[in-house]
Amino acid sequence: MYVFAIYSALCLFFMRRYEARFINVNNYLLNRSNILAEEYELSLGGTLILNEEEETVNKILMHWKEKESDEFFNNPQYFNFSKHYFTYKNHIYKSKVYQIIKRMPKGAALHLHSSLMLHVDKLIELTYEDHLYACYTDDHLDLQFSITVPERPCPLEWSLLSELRNASNDIELFDSKLKTFFTLYTENEDIMNSDINFTWNRFNKVIHNIKSLIRYRPVREKFFYKALKSFYDDNIMYIEIRTGLSYLYELDGTIHQGLYLAKLYQQVTKKFMEDYPDFVGVKMILTHHRKATLNKIQTALELANKLKDEMPEFFAGFDLVGQEDIGKPLFEFYPALFEAKDRINFYFHGGETDWFGTSTDENLIDAILLGSKRVGHAFALIKHPTLLREIKEKDIALEVNVISNVVLSLVQDVRNHPLASYLALGLPVVLSSDDPGAWDADPMSHDFYLAFSGVASKHADLRMLKQLVINSIKYSALNDKGKTKLFKIFNRKWEKFLKEVIAMNN
Amino acid sequence: MYVFAIYSALCLFFMRRYEARFINVNNYLLNRSNILAEEYELSLGGTLILNEEEETVNKILMHWKEKESDEFFNNPQYFNFSKHYFTYKNHIYKSKVYQIIKRMPKGAALHLHSSLMLHVDKLIELTYEDHLYACYTDDHLDLQFSITVPERPCPLEWSLLSELRNASNDIELFDSKLKTFFTLYTENEDIMNSDINFTWNRFNKVIHNIKSLIRYRPVREKFFYKALKSFYDDNIMYIEIRTGLSYLYELDGTIHQGLYLAKLYQQVTKKFMEDYPDFVGVKMILTHHRKATLNKIQTALELANKLKDEMPEFFAGFDLVGQEDIGKPLFEFYPALFEAKDRINFYFHGGETDWFGTSTDENLIDAILLGSKRVGHAFALIKHPTLLREIKEKDIALEVNVISNVVLSLVQDVRNHPLASYLALGLPVVLSSDDPGAWDADPMSHDFYLAFSGVASKHADLRMLKQLVINSIKYSALNDKGKTKLFKIFNRKWEKFLKEVIAMNN
Repeated sequence: MYVFAIYSALCLFFMRRYEARFINVNNYLLNRSNILAEEYELSLGGTLILNEEEETVNKILMHWKEKESDEFFNNPQYFNFSKHYFTYKNHIYKSKVYQIIKRMPKGAALHLHSSLMLHVDKLIELTYEDHLYACYTDDHLDLQFSITVPERPCPLEWSLLSELRNASNDIELFDSKLKTFFTLYTENEDIMNSDINFTWNRFNKVIHNIKSLIRYRPVREKFFYKALKSFYDDNIMYIEIRTGLSYLYELDGTIHQGLYLAKLYQQVTKKFMEDYPDFVGVKMILTHHRKATLNKIQTALELANKLKDEMPEFFAGFDLVGQEDIGKPLFEFYPALFEAKDRINFYFHGGETDWFGTSTDENLIDAILLGSKRVGHAFALIKHPTLLREIKEKDIALEVNVISNVVLSLVQDVRNHPLASYLALGLPVVLSSDDPGAWDADPMSHDFYLAFSGVASKHADLRMLKQLVINSIKYSALNDKGKTKLFKIFNRKWEKFLKEVIAMNN
Repeated sequence: MYVFAIYSALCLFFMRRYEARFINVNNYLLNRSNILAEEYELSLGGTLILNEEEETVNKILMHWKEKESDEFFNNPQYFNFSKHYFTYKNHIYKSKVYQIIKRMPKGAALHLHSSLMLHVDKLIELTYEDHLYACYTDDHLDLQFSITVPERPCPLEWSLLSELRNASNDIELFDSKLKTFFTLYTENEDIMNSDINFTWNRFNKVIHNIKSLIRYRPVREKFFYKALKSFYDDNIMYIEIRTGLSYLYELDGTIHQGLYLAKLYQQVTKKFMEDYPDFVGVKMILTHHRKATLNKIQTALELANKLKDEMPEFFAGFDLVGQEDIGKPLFEFYPALFEAKDRINFYFHGGETDWFGTSTDENLIDAILLGSKRVGHAFALIKHPTLLREIKEKDIALEVNVISNVVLSLVQDVRNHPLASYLALGLPVVLSSDDPGAWDADPMSHDFYLAFSGVASKHADLRMLKQLVINSIKYSALNDKGKTKLFKIFNRKWEKFLKEVIAMNN
């Protein structure tokens, strides 16, 4: 009996120890999964509930995401997010995740500069238009449509591009050389990895070259129609373009200023919507270069006022553009902007910089204080806890352009893009592509792909993608009626997309 | 009278409008400076109050910081934080900010791997010791101290290094070739910018080569003394080393295992403290490679227990080491670690990765749940809002090693290092240098310089630097008595430093 009592006591003692340890270990696992669940729920799209079909598609998507992520992890020689986008961009097309994202309806593209929307392959088609003269050396290109030889100075001489092309032995080679003037794409890693000022100099040249092609009114019309088509084909249903509304010319010498281009964009959009009734439209954000004087900004704001009165449906708001680091900060213009802010909606670029604590970095403060509806890039926001709180409280959307930030020398490894944190914090992110034409990217699919496979957590799934699309509609400049229409079309396309992915996989 | 009334009313109307605008604009400026002030105060060191002398030094420091920052901004061809540390490391010495930081007493270095603390120039002196045989080809080096030719296999043949050196036509050239085996430093940008696996392979070879030199007991003694001296000369007053306590050998074939090396480190430290009485000491964090089996980890934890009992003053805690991405996650060992955690202090590496949502990334969760006193690197923490909250609440220090993260291919542009956000959030950061010997960096000054001039806000000043030093003492494994002693010595050195900077500038 005594022995039994001792045995029982010992047994109880060890059971309790075992139990205590078991409870502790269970607690550990519970705490751990609670943290993971809390972080997932907080992250962008984390509270969305998927229906049965969505769950099926999600399984397919996540199967490929995991498989490809393991491949990249194990074979950095073939696909390596630590390198520049140009080194792996042509591999993206093979990705199954990309192929699913490509088909996915992606809602709206809200941060685009109008002249840089079109892929160089499509741009080159426009150089086959009649009457195009070129002033052309190895590192200089100027274009002008004209009946006679342009009178503007040219370092060598103006020649009809068609004649140059025909005189070349190899048209394909000629065109591929011509393309280099219209794109930042390069296979030279030294150029890829140059500093921001060098890159922006190259970028400004590309902008100049493209603009010299599309300043001719008939070509601009075709250019914009093709651009809308390429976004539409990439499953984008609504677009907001940033444009400085510069002049256009006709062959007869007529010059169109100011509102003309806005109206042309509107007409082309109307035509496009007739041809593709499930495209919801375009709105315009008037821009001005940030190197301007206060006077020029005031004049631009007056133009914005006029646009708002004359084209209230088409006009969305105002922004400043150009390399943020070396341009003037918003603060320099704040009295004029402050006065205009109750009438004009702002969509300011802010914090497109690596320099913490500089005036570029502090553009974020002014964008927020000036009531900017969204902030463009907001790359530096992650370094500003107070501004992060303001952004969240005021529900200001962040227009994130991952590839742009790589190509324009802000960050090299997309996995270090602050978007990862913005997604984890569930901030109101909208993805966009800034100038996809200038870096030979898809209109929007490459940016979605990189954000999903390169930047976001391995656990981020269809919920995140869907939330990004929802955000692009929610934070657009559309009125409620427009948003409802866009949501309706999106929902229809989304169902079709789900069925397609399931069918593809059967 | 009527006209006067109208005039007065009008006047009042315009005055009120003017006043309202004036108040608004003033409000704007007030809001703006409040945000800036709030962010400054939240940031690391933001609440420190400087005395008069410190204010003077701060003015000198900030004068140079601003001047140099403008220079780098305007001349990216000479100094460019967007590039790899190796491209600008030799320019750092010219910086006045660096020269001030170099003189600054920097408290403690808390994240160091014992074999990689010594600069290659000092390491090379040790290759002049007698009896050193080398097995040496263009891309392979193995070293052994021996009376006779070593019996271990060698692809070519074992030769006395002294004979090889004497037989070479150019000893300087011979040594500079020899150095390449002991360092990751390279001028080849392709190698600098390789992927993480490639870099870690190079790194593991460097570790192998250095270890083959310092496995010989008398050389290890000299090595460690020289290492302490180099940190001391860089104004570091206390050190915590991570070491796996591998074996040492003597010329007569004796092998020393286990505790021997710990005791040797302790003896050398004692000798060093006798020679330099204002050096406060060394503590040891026992490490094991993270590719180990659960069994091996359990054995290592038993050794930790033993160390704790036998050398309670010297032993600080336990950690796992090796490339985190391809090693096993903490979670795989958690039952053993969980059981040990109430007896052994942990100082785990966590989140030394770019891969968000992987098991490496989630080492951060386990480090926190296992009660890690500090977290090594915590590079990925910025992507984890819940864990950021936990770190703050539990006051867990982050051991940040900026240069290490660049050299070991986590991030290229230091301005994109998450340390910027950790500093802005006022998290308990301690700076360290991980393996400064392996990348030819100063023991600690280069890391302080980069954190201050490259990573932190342009507004971050002497307060931040002082807080980093305070943190390094506060979050060390020293007991209260030790911390008090270290603070006392620091304060004395700090006053001397202030006077020196002021004198330099007069």
